[in-house]
Amino acid sequence: MTMVVADMSMSVDGFVAGPNTDAEHPLGHGGELLHRWLFADPRDPQDSEVAAEMTASVGAVVLGRRTFDVGVNIWGDVPFPAPCFVLTHRPHDERVMASGSFTFVTGGVPQAISRARAAAGDRNVQLMGAETVQQVMAAGLVDEIGINLVPVLLGHGVRMFDALPTDHVDLTRTRVIASDSATHLRFRVAG
Amino acid sequence: MTMVVADMSMSVDGFVAGPNTDAEHPLGHGGELLHRWLFADPRDPQDSEVAAEMTASVGAVVLGRRTFDVGVNIWGDVPFPAPCFVLTHRPHDERVMASGSFTFVTGGVPQAISRARAAAGDRNVQLMGAETVQQVMAAGLVDEIGINLVPVLLGHGVRMFDALPTDHVDLTRTRVIASDSATHLRFRVAG
Repeated sequence: MTMVVADMSMSVDGFVAGPNTDAEHPLGHGGELLHRWLFADPRDPQDSEVAAEMTASVGAVVLGRRTFDVGVNIWGDVPFPAPCFVLTHRPHDERVMASGSFTFVTGGVPQAISRARAAAGDRNVQLMGAETVQQVMAAGLVDEIGINLVPVLLGHGVRMFDALPTDHVDLTRTRVIASDSATHLRFRVAG
Repeated sequence: MTMVVADMSMSVDGFVAGPNTDAEHPLGHGGELLHRWLFADPRDPQDSEVAAEMTASVGAVVLGRRTFDVGVNIWGDVPFPAPCFVLTHRPHDERVMASGSFTFVTGGVPQAISRARAAAGDRNVQLMGAETVQQVMAAGLVDEIGINLVPVLLGHGVRMFDALPTDHVDLTRTRVIASDSATHLRFRVAG
């Protein structure tokens, strides 16, 4: 069954990027600390398994225009080998890459999620970028939240969670994997 | 060895209290959700163990004046059976309670921590209140951070971590206990 998943590496104080993100520093100042667990050499087998499982689960991607702008030259391809839907106000022709394509969706969050769901087959729709996660959360369309909790306090930057419009949202924890470099948590959003 | 410990129940989106805290609602609107794990009946044995171990470890407490003001009538005693040091700008006579006392410290954070350390024997100094935690973090005087991560998004309220003055702070995870109601994490602060 396709789920809409927000999966991010987050500091203990709630940041998914440092301050001052731009094309040269897509994770902002200090943000690279959040991905140490992914790029450790050698990498903890538990971290490898989490990363491989996540990549294998992605059937489609929904990302913001800003994430696209800062990411596309770094990736040199789509971020995951899957159809990618970019939330934007500016229409733009589809952009075909080596392992997938970027489709620019101007009809808003529900339309982007709907198109991504249709494209994902029985795999998941992965959200990318804090702003996109927050918009899709606000629309009540996130099924699972994955947090790779990294043992660092960044102090400043881009928060994964900013003020939600609703009262509160109950979660159910469905996974804890504790490697040396991160605590991989997964939560189901109450429906 | 005495450690200065910040131990709090936090939502997945980083809040330790809901909005609009006052004497009648010390945890703010929705904040009681953060303490469900403590008051469940029956309580998960793992949650009981975490709570008992925490209480047993407290040799002294440092809290803010605001936490004192909203808490003192609810507790009807000291919050833990130990000497408590209240950070304040207004001098006030010591207040003796059934299981300990409140001493009002006007000399600032380092003085309060120093007096609490001296009073704690070989047990820990427990910090109470997000503002106090942030002040003691900013002074570089926190040794361990305990987070009882509660599976809920509050959306609004009082954050455990707000902008830190330093660049970043490395942590080492020293514990993960995953009960049904919370994920009990503990981190050593590098330095």
